[in-house]
Amino acid sequence: MGTHVDFWQVTGDALDFALAAVGLDDPAMRRRLMDLYLELDAYPEVPAMLGRLKAGGLATAILSNGAPAMLDAAVESARLTDSLDHVLSVEDVGIFKPDPRVYRLAADRLGVAPHEICFQSSNAWDAFAASHFGFRVVWINRFNQPPERIPGAPDRQLGDLAALPELIGLS
Amino acid sequence: MGTHVDFWQVTGDALDFALAAVGLDDPAMRRRLMDLYLELDAYPEVPAMLGRLKAGGLATAILSNGAPAMLDAAVESARLTDSLDHVLSVEDVGIFKPDPRVYRLAADRLGVAPHEICFQSSNAWDAFAASHFGFRVVWINRFNQPPERIPGAPDRQLGDLAALPELIGLS
Repeated sequence: MGTHVDFWQVTGDALDFALAAVGLDDPAMRRRLMDLYLELDAYPEVPAMLGRLKAGGLATAILSNGAPAMLDAAVESARLTDSLDHVLSVEDVGIFKPDPRVYRLAADRLGVAPHEICFQSSNAWDAFAASHFGFRVVWINRFNQPPERIPGAPDRQLGDLAALPELIGLS
Repeated sequence: MGTHVDFWQVTGDALDFALAAVGLDDPAMRRRLMDLYLELDAYPEVPAMLGRLKAGGLATAILSNGAPAMLDAAVESARLTDSLDHVLSVEDVGIFKPDPRVYRLAADRLGVAPHEICFQSSNAWDAFAASHFGFRVVWINRFNQPPERIPGAPDRQLGDLAALPELIGLS
């Protein structure tokens, strides 16, 4: 529609719609559900995997549709602050993935060409769109989903992130 | 992602994804399901309602995300050819609703201002976005859905189209 609000607003709006659709009006539950977004755990293999990337001399970054405050809270909650060199939010460009301006933001901020970025997502649409933009992509297909029917094609698939360092040549 | 394919392609892609997700590979069923899109019925109140609009001197039009061939087939199958002055497809602008360029297409083709168009949709997102663009909108809320949380607000709601002529002042 050509207008933008951030992911905290979108998440709350979607929750309000869902609550209304099932006839619930429970402000305490709504608050609890929203707060859970601020204390997300990482998957168990993530901390060690990030440590291996950084030990191998690579820069690490999140590129997320989440709002900055959501990302800061989630990174801190998952104790990943020291494992990440950059936490990039789409709010800096004011439009959500899969718009190519978001992927461009990462290349610009990291000061590298798109093909120098190895991008991972468990969202198939994100993996395919990032590949279409020019990133090298490993689709973390945790739930054995079928491929998307959109432009782009991930270079590789993994079931989780544990084998990523080996896949990209780190010991 | 900045690329566009028409709704026939999107519909087939979505069906292929859904079939793959449940492990089905049945080309005959796929063909039958796609063909059903070409022989959609109108809701029962529609022919008489359109007749009253035209008897009242109003121009009638479809403004649809569907591809032209899909619309032509569906209009013919529902025997609405003589009841419609215009059948407008988003393919003429190459982007789907709710992009405002689609609503602009209708105003341009009909040669009227947005507020001179009375727009109906049972898709809440379409009704809200059309209102945000500037149409007068009656949301045909057939399934008693909660309101969307997006810009715009339909002027009125109806459960079906039967009462539309009276609502807009026709006898």
